[in-house]
Amino acid sequence: MAQYNVAPLEKLVEQFEKMPGIGHKTAQRLAYYVLNLPKSDAEELAGAVMDAHTKIHYCSKCCNLTDKELCPICSNPVRDNSTICVVETPRDATAVENTHEYRGVFHVLHGAISPLNDVGPDNLTIKQLIARLSDDTVKEVIMATNPTIEGDATALYISKLLKPMGVKVTRLAYGIPVGGDLEYADEYTLAKALEGRNEI
Amino acid sequence: MAQYNVAPLEKLVEQFEKMPGIGHKTAQRLAYYVLNLPKSDAEELAGAVMDAHTKIHYCSKCCNLTDKELCPICSNPVRDNSTICVVETPRDATAVENTHEYRGVFHVLHGAISPLNDVGPDNLTIKQLIARLSDDTVKEVIMATNPTIEGDATALYISKLLKPMGVKVTRLAYGIPVGGDLEYADEYTLAKALEGRNEI
Repeated sequence: MAQYNVAPLEKLVEQFEKMPGIGHKTAQRLAYYVLNLPKSDAEELAGAVMDAHTKIHYCSKCCNLTDKELCPICSNPVRDNSTICVVETPRDATAVENTHEYRGVFHVLHGAISPLNDVGPDNLTIKQLIARLSDDTVKEVIMATNPTIEGDATALYISKLLKPMGVKVTRLAYGIPVGGDLEYADEYTLAKALEGRNEI
Repeated sequence: MAQYNVAPLEKLVEQFEKMPGIGHKTAQRLAYYVLNLPKSDAEELAGAVMDAHTKIHYCSKCCNLTDKELCPICSNPVRDNSTICVVETPRDATAVENTHEYRGVFHVLHGAISPLNDVGPDNLTIKQLIARLSDDTVKEVIMATNPTIEGDATALYISKLLKPMGVKVTRLAYGIPVGGDLEYADEYTLAKALEGRNEI
């Protein structure tokens, strides 16, 4: 019995399957969705893929993604340029931004130091970060890398570089998540939460 | 505080968000994945979207998807043309095909009768199915539409059309799924399984 095989469809399924979190079944569903799109919508999708690729680059200041010279945050005169929040990815910057509590600017490292994955300090935008500290505008650098071994190592590495430059370096607080349940908190988080306890 | 907004990125996220089962977070993850692709890979993805759209059409015999005149199953001389398995979608045909138990051919309806969704018999490929019965090749039509109200209605509607033509019309067996647990089977399935019980 011959396997049913329609080359262009298989190719599309393959493309979707490569995406993160997309398995074979989901890839098939997406491919059939694309097939059923009106032609103009398929063109729009293909165009959006290429546009995102050709038009988006790093902000010349904070290395976040933008289609302009400066990203919307760096070009916003209201933002506080004396505080830089260092994050691993653009999505992390968006997450901090969505708290609506942060008025400073960002620096996007585009990864974390991870010897196992062949990512060293030179693969990140650490040089660009240091260049931003050349004048005395920046008073505080908040290390908001992920609470993982790689994120912690990156935060430590950068803080060691920055401290001699006379800038205050802080790290996001560890603790139990709001709305979480002590029972389900892992022991490391709970230990950190104990360690960082505040008087009420 | 200005919302962070990179137009081409937002547009790509929007495109992914329209896809079935893809929420905002997943759409963002996919968009960033596309951004991080090498340019040639992004071109391949965009190309696959357009190719699937321009090259794929219905098989002139069974209405399954193909990029040729006939689909691989209809053009396979080994397949048994006296049995047609009628399914709602190409994916259903693939599911039956994956059992490796079926040697007949298919007919893809591209939907099921569903008055609520404005899908009537004329929106399906029922005419093409009837045209296939004009000579005496076909001995049996297996209705393998979904075990839903729409699928059942479609199977009933088609069987009523076909029976006067002297062809045997059968329906997939209902019952408890293999490896399932009686306790978790819904009452309708269990009732159908009882009704269709076989001597052992």
